[in-house]
Amino acid sequence: MESSSRDFGPDMHQLMQDLFPICRSITGEGVRQTLRRIQDVIPVKTYEVPSGTKVFDWTIPKEWNIFDAYVEDMNGNNVIDFQINNLHIVGYSVPTDKIVTLEELNEHLYSLPEQPEAIPYVTSYYNETWGFCVSHNERQKLTEEKYHVVIKSTLDAGNLTYGEYIIPGESDKEVFLSTYICHPSLANNELSGPVVLSYIGKWLASKPRRYTYRMIFVPETIGAITYLSRNLQELKSRVVAGFNLTCLGDESGYSYIASRYGNSYADKVANNILSTCYPDFIQYSFLDRGSDESQYCSPGVDLPLVTLCRRKFGSYPQYHTSLDNLDFVTPKALSESYQLIKKCLIAVEKNKKYQINCFCEPQLGKRGLYPTVSFLNSAAPVKTMLDFITYADGDNDLIDISNRLNKPLDDLFPVVKTLLDAGLLSTLD
Amino acid sequence: MESSSRDFGPDMHQLMQDLFPICRSITGEGVRQTLRRIQDVIPVKTYEVPSGTKVFDWTIPKEWNIFDAYVEDMNGNNVIDFQINNLHIVGYSVPTDKIVTLEELNEHLYSLPEQPEAIPYVTSYYNETWGFCVSHNERQKLTEEKYHVVIKSTLDAGNLTYGEYIIPGESDKEVFLSTYICHPSLANNELSGPVVLSYIGKWLASKPRRYTYRMIFVPETIGAITYLSRNLQELKSRVVAGFNLTCLGDESGYSYIASRYGNSYADKVANNILSTCYPDFIQYSFLDRGSDESQYCSPGVDLPLVTLCRRKFGSYPQYHTSLDNLDFVTPKALSESYQLIKKCLIAVEKNKKYQINCFCEPQLGKRGLYPTVSFLNSAAPVKTMLDFITYADGDNDLIDISNRLNKPLDDLFPVVKTLLDAGLLSTLD
Amino acid sequence: MESSSRDFGPDMHQLMQDLFPICRSITGEGVRQTLRRIQDVIPVKTYEVPSGTKVFDWTIPKEWNIFDAYVEDMNGNNVIDFQINNLHIVGYSVPTDKIVTLEELNEHLYSLPEQPEAIPYVTSYYNETWGFCVSHNERQKLTEEKYHVVIKSTLDAGNLTYGEYIIPGESDKEVFLSTYICHPSLANNELSGPVVLSYIGKWLASKPRRYTYRMIFVPETIGAITYLSRNLQELKSRVVAGFNLTCLGDESGYSYIASRYGNSYADKVANNILSTCYPDFIQYSFLDRGSDESQYCSPGVDLPLVTLCRRKFGSYPQYHTSLDNLDFVTPKALSESYQLIKKCLIAVEKNKKYQINCFCEPQLGKRGLYPTVSFLNSAAPVKTMLDFITYADGDNDLIDISNRLNKPLDDLFPVVKTLLDAGLLSTLD
Repeated sequence: MESSSRDFGPDMHQLMQDLFPICRSITGEGVRQTLRRIQDVIPVKTYEVPSGTKVFDWTIPKEWNIFDAYVEDMNGNNVIDFQINNLHIVGYSVPTDKIVTLEELNEHLYSLPEQPEAIPYVTSYYNETWGFCVSHNERQKLTEEKYHVVIKSTLDAGNLTYGEYIIPGESDKEVFLSTYICHPSLANNELSGPVVLSYIGKWLASKPRRYTYRMIFVPETIGAITYLSRNLQELKSRVVAGFNLTCLGDESGYSYIASRYGNSYADKVANNILSTCYPDFIQYSFLDRGSDESQYCSPGVDLPLVTLCRRKFGSYPQYHTSLDNLDFVTPKALSESYQLIKKCLIAVEKNKKYQINCFCEPQLGKRGLYPTVSFLNSAAPVKTMLDFITYADGDNDLIDISNRLNKPLDDLFPVVKTLLDAGLLSTLD
Repeated sequence: MESSSRDFGPDMHQLMQDLFPICRSITGEGVRQTLRRIQDVIPVKTYEVPSGTKVFDWTIPKEWNIFDAYVEDMNGNNVIDFQINNLHIVGYSVPTDKIVTLEELNEHLYSLPEQPEAIPYVTSYYNETWGFCVSHNERQKLTEEKYHVVIKSTLDAGNLTYGEYIIPGESDKEVFLSTYICHPSLANNELSGPVVLSYIGKWLASKPRRYTYRMIFVPETIGAITYLSRNLQELKSRVVAGFNLTCLGDESGYSYIASRYGNSYADKVANNILSTCYPDFIQYSFLDRGSDESQYCSPGVDLPLVTLCRRKFGSYPQYHTSLDNLDFVTPKALSESYQLIKKCLIAVEKNKKYQINCFCEPQLGKRGLYPTVSFLNSAAPVKTMLDFITYADGDNDLIDISNRLNKPLDDLFPVVKTLLDAGLLSTLD
Repeated sequence: MESSSRDFGPDMHQLMQDLFPICRSITGEGVRQTLRRIQDVIPVKTYEVPSGTKVFDWTIPKEWNIFDAYVEDMNGNNVIDFQINNLHIVGYSVPTDKIVTLEELNEHLYSLPEQPEAIPYVTSYYNETWGFCVSHNERQKLTEEKYHVVIKSTLDAGNLTYGEYIIPGESDKEVFLSTYICHPSLANNELSGPVVLSYIGKWLASKPRRYTYRMIFVPETIGAITYLSRNLQELKSRVVAGFNLTCLGDESGYSYIASRYGNSYADKVANNILSTCYPDFIQYSFLDRGSDESQYCSPGVDLPLVTLCRRKFGSYPQYHTSLDNLDFVTPKALSESYQLIKKCLIAVEKNKKYQINCFCEPQLGKRGLYPTVSFLNSAAPVKTMLDFITYADGDNDLIDISNRLNKPLDDLFPVVKTLLDAGLLSTLD
């Protein structure tokens, strides 16, 4: 499994443009539409889980669909309009059609005084209510006594929908990749995750694979819990490393959220790749969690998983507002993130323990691998090879050696090949 | 076992005022008088161990009692007078009545040129001699040729006396509390220890207890060794945590002296309480020891014990001088120290391992424990509860979780109660 | 085994002066001459291993001997002359006698433009060629069209020679000491190693010894590999600590190269001695290796060994040039290095676990080991003894205690003696 040079940045950004207008929530047609568009890239299989199903401590809620929503003044002028921006409606708002006073309306309005241009993103999944989100500037203009509120939604028994794509490999041991699809028009958090994951899936399917890859696209929290409730024992017995993908679309540096104790194999992989290739990364503790790692790394679930981001959700001002839009996310950033994820997966694929086949240093010179004349730093060009040999003692895997040498895995892969070709190295399982 | 709000600072200071004039030593009536006054607060049981008894590598010395001591000039004017300050007499001075030259007298005088107002505290327990301690200023005034030295003491076969108070709890596992009573009129080192411990005993006896509490009041070093020689196997099999109390009466910050390897359960408790509640504390290594922790943590004894202090003995200028008096110690400081000790004991009492009862995060919302609308930092109020749940995995005890979250135990106790009440949490032994 | 006060600095420097002119290489008469001169100091036994012998992945090369070599202009004036400095000839140069153009000559010349006064040291052991090394200044003067190159050398089947000196001790467990003898006139790297080791051997032989000492003088790399190939199992089963000695003759500070994982007993010894006695030392990682530690600590060999140096090979500008000469190395530096090695070996000899024989502190006073009067810091003089007793718990060896107390072993040896004499201490194996 090798890196390819094709730049999928524009394709990923196009996919995002297509997905952006869809009004997703934790249930409903928005999720299904999203998965259908992703199926243009990879053959995701969709699952429907009925409302009312118990999933661990939770219950799948009613399915919510939204068709239209607006607030108009008594002259029939729309002052808030879902058709213009789907963030205007509080997620899971119940059907409504009534005249309210400004005071009553205000109790159902959400705005951000400190970001007066931005429409916030608000939901109320488990308590039936209604509400609208507006920019604080627009809210200031609402001065009339009464308004007409119309919400054309349904909240009925239905299903929670999620997508799964399993790509078999040589082994039934798995790499688990998760991302979420439950936010309306929000680009970085969340669409950067599904978009990058789709193209990662396309790449994975095109290459020979040591591991089986399990990719899921789920509504956040309830979707992850639902998936775990149906697949826990299988995941626990198979997954060697997992990555939750989110916030990969802006041009900031990388970060990852460690697993509960920060010591899983996924932590080891992420830490190695980021330390050696992107040394300015931020490592967040599990106390800084906030996405589905909360479920995947919860007690008793304990999947070896980290969340990979650029700037973490909640740490940038555009987060959960209308400013997290298609301008905030760039093809370049998506493309780089795609490369990061590939590096992590290549690391998992290629990581093994090796053992040198002879006592003492092998005589590299007789194999043409060492300078014939000893003068000044003549050994410098083979320093990485010599250091690799020294720690290829059967105890260290490639990542351990990379860490010890502080050299990226990409510098070690050719060394491994050279030594294997020279018959000097044994592969341990 | 809960904190109560009554301020015992004045009571503790009054007890100290009553104990301060008594001339204690490692044996003798001073120790017995001290224990009798403490019996007004708690029912300490006293033990007498005869002179000559072997206690490990040591032998209980003769019992020393002192009735009067002075140095007078040849005109009969007292120039040093034990009746004015019992620090004037070197502890264990033998009976003496003779005329000495100034030169000979000087060989038996102790003063502090760098603290010329202070009378030092000096003893000679195991080598029979006599001596007087004076302020350096007073010593300068001694210019006559001859002086009359009178020491009315006895040094005969008798007993070493100590006190013990055992308060049974649900378990016969014990918390061990030790303090010392062998110094004459010295307030912070030593009376703050016995005074705080007496009121801790009163509080402990008034509450339900998980653990049995063993409190001892012993002469330092020889008393601790004596106690260990009679109770070692019982202590080793029962004590889960021990605290040696001293220097708790001035208004400085807290410190503790770690056990020999700094890794006992008492270290864990002390470190947690001080780190989370009094972050400016000082942690001393066992190399900085100097009180009975030297015995309790010695090889083969190995009790899990730390010494709790404010400024440590030896680290403040008043230490072992007449400046360590009733003015140096305040009711406020005693009261705060009493609260610190209580916090440590409550930590021991309440510390347990807990395990969350479901996979993934429980649905707190349906129990009214989570905000219904998701907007901005809506989860912030329940952050501690969510973090607690995450690490309540059966491996961590409450102190581990407190350390990991960097939150005081006092913030976790209500969370535990809420989750237990909600049926979401199991208690492990 | 104790330190003696005789200063062997001048003797060691004299030995070096005698060895300096010899033209050593990895094989040949130079090695034999060197060992014969060392036999004046210690009875080293020499071994000859025939060319063509397989030693692990390597093969012993032909034996090289050099008798004369020069470059002369067409008028017969010598412009480069081996008789003046044996560094002028590239090691293992084949016999040559021909007229070459300046261009062709230049392909066989080595010089250092950045150190124009220095003649570099160059070898080509495993690829048959010829060459000369010159100062860059001299090279600039070569402007004629043609030169006559004469190399009177032999490169034939012969032997690799090494020396071994085994000094039996009470135990057949061994301390292993290695140094190399394959460089021509280079003083610090390499002669300081053999010179110091010779006098260490003389000292060791003169004292009772707990351990057996195995000292070897080998050509670097191929010699170490040869020795290992013939002695590996014996070394692995017997060696408790090993030290490779090199670059000990200049007056800079000390350093050591850690073993592969930095956790061997030799690391523990070296780190303790350097930390407590020479705290400005440098600790190099095994990634900075470059001498025979590469072989001794290679996977599967895994001897517990460190390399002891002052400034490490490669880290000073004189390294591998004619500037690394008899002026660069001083008797004082050799003498101090000799003391360092002795300290390390005394540490190995004397290091044991001890256990105090009583519970609690022993009563030192009754043995005259403690001040009789307690006044001010009266215990300060016995602080090291008290701290030693505290950690003499059967778990720590002397080095552990030295590290914990941050006191040199030299401060602990008298304490051990006092306590053993007092019957207070037991020696564990």
